[in-house]
Amino acid sequence: MKLPPAAVLLSTHSAMQSRSSILLDYNVAPPNLSTLPNGSLFDTWRPRAHVLPPTGQVGDPCMHYTDPATGLFHVGFLHDSEGISGATTDDLATYHDLNPNGSQSIVPGGINDPLAVFDGSVIPAGIDGLPTLLYTSVSYLPIHWSIPYTRGSETQSLAVSSDGGRNFTKLAQGPVIPGPPFAYNVTAFRDPYVFQNPTLDSLLHSPNNTWYTVISGGLHGKGPAQFLYRQYDPDFQYWEYLGPWWHEPTNSTWGSGIWAGRWGFNFETGNIFTLDTDGYNPDGQFFATLGTEGSNQPIIPQLTSIHDMLWVSGIVSNNDSVAFTPTMAGFLDWGFSSYAAAGKILPATSQPSTNSGAPDRFISYVWLSGDLFEQAEGFPTSQQNWTGTLLLPRELHVLSLPNVVDNALSRESGASWRVVHRDADTHTVTLQTLGISIARETKTALLSGTSSTEPSRTLSTTTTVPFQHSPSSKFFVLSATLTFPASARNSSTLQSGFTILASEYESTTIYYQFSNESIIVDRNNTSAAARTTNGIDSSSEAGKLRLFDVLSEGGEKVIETLDLTLVVDNSVLEVYANGRFALSTWVRSWYANSTGISFFQNGEGEVKFENVTLSEGLYDAWPDRT
Amino acid sequence: MKLPPAAVLLSTHSAMQSRSSILLDYNVAPPNLSTLPNGSLFDTWRPRAHVLPPTGQVGDPCMHYTDPATGLFHVGFLHDSEGISGATTDDLATYHDLNPNGSQSIVPGGINDPLAVFDGSVIPAGIDGLPTLLYTSVSYLPIHWSIPYTRGSETQSLAVSSDGGRNFTKLAQGPVIPGPPFAYNVTAFRDPYVFQNPTLDSLLHSPNNTWYTVISGGLHGKGPAQFLYRQYDPDFQYWEYLGPWWHEPTNSTWGSGIWAGRWGFNFETGNIFTLDTDGYNPDGQFFATLGTEGSNQPIIPQLTSIHDMLWVSGIVSNNDSVAFTPTMAGFLDWGFSSYAAAGKILPATSQPSTNSGAPDRFISYVWLSGDLFEQAEGFPTSQQNWTGTLLLPRELHVLSLPNVVDNALSRESGASWRVVHRDADTHTVTLQTLGISIARETKTALLSGTSSTEPSRTLSTTTTVPFQHSPSSKFFVLSATLTFPASARNSSTLQSGFTILASEYESTTIYYQFSNESIIVDRNNTSAAARTTNGIDSSSEAGKLRLFDVLSEGGEKVIETLDLTLVVDNSVLEVYANGRFALSTWVRSWYANSTGISFFQNGEGEVKFENVTLSEGLYDAWPDRT
Repeated sequence: MKLPPAAVLLSTHSAMQSRSSILLDYNVAPPNLSTLPNGSLFDTWRPRAHVLPPTGQVGDPCMHYTDPATGLFHVGFLHDSEGISGATTDDLATYHDLNPNGSQSIVPGGINDPLAVFDGSVIPAGIDGLPTLLYTSVSYLPIHWSIPYTRGSETQSLAVSSDGGRNFTKLAQGPVIPGPPFAYNVTAFRDPYVFQNPTLDSLLHSPNNTWYTVISGGLHGKGPAQFLYRQYDPDFQYWEYLGPWWHEPTNSTWGSGIWAGRWGFNFETGNIFTLDTDGYNPDGQFFATLGTEGSNQPIIPQLTSIHDMLWVSGIVSNNDSVAFTPTMAGFLDWGFSSYAAAGKILPATSQPSTNSGAPDRFISYVWLSGDLFEQAEGFPTSQQNWTGTLLLPRELHVLSLPNVVDNALSRESGASWRVVHRDADTHTVTLQTLGISIARETKTALLSGTSSTEPSRTLSTTTTVPFQHSPSSKFFVLSATLTFPASARNSSTLQSGFTILASEYESTTIYYQFSNESIIVDRNNTSAAARTTNGIDSSSEAGKLRLFDVLSEGGEKVIETLDLTLVVDNSVLEVYANGRFALSTWVRSWYANSTGISFFQNGEGEVKFENVTLSEGLYDAWPDRT
Repeated sequence: MKLPPAAVLLSTHSAMQSRSSILLDYNVAPPNLSTLPNGSLFDTWRPRAHVLPPTGQVGDPCMHYTDPATGLFHVGFLHDSEGISGATTDDLATYHDLNPNGSQSIVPGGINDPLAVFDGSVIPAGIDGLPTLLYTSVSYLPIHWSIPYTRGSETQSLAVSSDGGRNFTKLAQGPVIPGPPFAYNVTAFRDPYVFQNPTLDSLLHSPNNTWYTVISGGLHGKGPAQFLYRQYDPDFQYWEYLGPWWHEPTNSTWGSGIWAGRWGFNFETGNIFTLDTDGYNPDGQFFATLGTEGSNQPIIPQLTSIHDMLWVSGIVSNNDSVAFTPTMAGFLDWGFSSYAAAGKILPATSQPSTNSGAPDRFISYVWLSGDLFEQAEGFPTSQQNWTGTLLLPRELHVLSLPNVVDNALSRESGASWRVVHRDADTHTVTLQTLGISIARETKTALLSGTSSTEPSRTLSTTTTVPFQHSPSSKFFVLSATLTFPASARNSSTLQSGFTILASEYESTTIYYQFSNESIIVDRNNTSAAARTTNGIDSSSEAGKLRLFDVLSEGGEKVIETLDLTLVVDNSVLEVYANGRFALSTWVRSWYANSTGISFFQNGEGEVKFENVTLSEGLYDAWPDRT
């Protein structure tokens, strides 16, 4: 999601003045936060281990790449609607701003992009062997799927960095993709994502190592689409249109829409990559991540009320024209504010991977909007002086689930998994889905603090059991394994999980609920500030996770255990489960002592909580920042 | 030819200050004119009956149209490299500036055209039924066929007038033709010329009355070309590319190059229209006028040293793709400084035609560069405070030449005529070529002054015979018929014509020379100022005109008579001959008394001068201007 320049924060953007000198007392009830001085809430909810600029608004992640000259991984993001800023990392944990005060590497205002620079992606060794950005250059606004498209609003242009990514200098020429395909009445035409793929090379008889780009958008009256282009010349001047290789009917869904939301009215930020079970593999299965713009009814012009952060896997064919046909789709993150993920191949030769020994990977950063996509009216934006964050880097890979009982649960169609193998002897199937894990180096760093283990326990009725040791701060990782009885499948009421960030006045509960196979983050009581201040959202978040029937090692049919990891980075909560589920949201507790954790259960059923470990402190992702 | 904005005149552009208060004495030899105060030469050489802005530089004519709401004919032209100005006429003689001080109706500086507005053409009843300009919007400079083309330099955009043509308001959107066809490495991509044509409708299965546009330019390494597009939607948003319907090899020629110069390195200002012998006919023969950019050797980067102002006729076919194949080609004007003609259909329903009773016509205005396309170093530009002019409007039509003897002269191939009929009995052929005449209303106005007739006379040897009555000013029309003896065909030396603008110190001689079948304008002695001031060109001009062998009424084989019309509008000389020849140039005489005319003959041969008439005064084309 891109914000018009008018939405630039009112705040000062100097890191020197990011914080107010006001001290707030977090032991008493908060005032209406929007009455506080600017900058006074800077530290209140600021995460430590996440990627976000020193001050201001972070938007879509983009412009990531591994610099072949240094092996450093570059992470970028839209910044204050005034271009793209970036940082480097050699360990996927700590980051270094490329420019002083985290300022932008490219800003709008050129002939091609008088109004805005939208998302771009990087060919690491592009023009003259230098990192080359293909980005959306914006000449007219507003742009929205719900209104007529102004021709020429979005074109795709090139910029090159010769200073290690600090600055991307726009080519002194017009766009290399000067408009959508002929006579396409698009809903959008942006976020070019460059990639290489030997399968496409073969299908399309392209030279080896040809670059492709998908451009996200859609067609008015038809539906969302990805437009596929192919590099035409060594200078990346021309991109040959290969067709709308993937399009879906307007506001249609994958399957019934339960497992992968809606395709919506317009696609954004489509990434294309290929994976195997280890990570990135050029010959692997095709995957995409994408944001879909949806809406509640009735549609309000220029309002996207639903932003789904999806992934999809599919088959690529070339019968007359190249086509991508989905085989499964799901949420990359179920959080209401999670959107616009951008990933990139992180080669084994990169500095992070060399250090960790990781193979070629595909690393994706999801954006977490800080203000409900600008709809959080009353949010104390100026008081906080930063808005939004990127989520932790995630390794994506093909996740194989063997020994799953061959039944209606595993055989559901239109789901976020698919059956790839059936064992007739055991009546089991092997399922495949997208594996989503915190990047290994990041996870290691997150767990580098003081750790403690809670004794395992079994809860069988409604109860809340405080931890023997709760964390002393709001920076921690909690992981646990929950084993449910077979009877849970038929329980309409069982809810099991943890209450965190708890005190007398506040608490947030994360639990699995069998009745709708969901992980729920109950935020009704998360923040005392929500009771004084508009724009502090207290609605619950939910995401679907099916716990399959599996054969235990002993051959017994059991319900898959729930492997839960909660990362709490002050106000940022990321919930990971079973290597294939993620849900992130804001948990803006106010009181200093809202750090308690409890086991939580509601309803009947013997649930075993095991491997309950707590790691405190996290780490400072920005050691250079003052 | 377009000038970069840097070339804007240094002069003030206010009509109030166009003239200096200095009085010059035209009875004594001139000083170096570039030492004079600005504006002091404003009146010295200024024409009366021609189209040019109140002050400043006139560039390519363009943006002509008949306003369906008023019937007025609008004549436009690039003005001071700062957009396009225009004027209206109801009689093709007198004009009225559309804006105060002749200021522009459209200026550069928008998102699409930050640097320049180049030539455009008008759909008279376009968007919302209003005059709609399709013009070249320029984002990058320099642009020249001799240097690499900066992508995106030239796009085609729309602007609409809702105030009778005073202002053309750019659509608030990107270009409707956002770039050349895919991966074309163009030498130029500009001067869209819109037209309708039922033959194309039929060949291309277009809806009736579809609009087409040719865009002029070429391809690096291949040659000049016209790119043909077709209207795709009623709002003129999309133009479908139909192919390079006409292209020629780099710097090739029509035939041997004698009759139609060179195709050069790049095409400019291509107009497409269909004619019959009366004028415009939608079902008539295809014609084009175009400027070709050529060069002497060696090529100097960014210098077009030859500008040919050509016409071409051809066959349009559609075998797989639509193609224009020339059948004959020639010069629309042979003058070195004549270029960039723009014409338009003038319907019989227009005000000028209603008043004159003329049928549908195609009226073309040629540009006469005032400073040798900026190469006239030392020209007193600021002193004159205006540069260049448009030439008189010309009616174009198919000219039929019957009773031409069927011999090698008429049968020459690669010529500016073609054989359309042969009469075996008489051994004659009928030839066809482009007829070029001063627009009838214009000619009538030119001849509205005091006229006198010189007695016919026959010269047979080298001599100069002063007119009994020479004009009192430098504003006149001289016409005559010259009849040459059959022996002239073999004379290598015979030259016959007139000396004009003559005094003791100056004279200009226009004569026909059989040795190379040329009309020559000898300017060696035209201007005393050329002897004191650089940039006053004194080179001779020449154009080829074949006088065919024809059968007289008595059946005798004779040489076609030379029908000569000279229009002298102060410094502007237009030479017309035999309804098919035009050559225009500057004749910048200095002395007040350089108004004498003489018969001129050099060499042996009995030449009859008949119908020698002189019409003095011309008319003031700009009655509103002070």
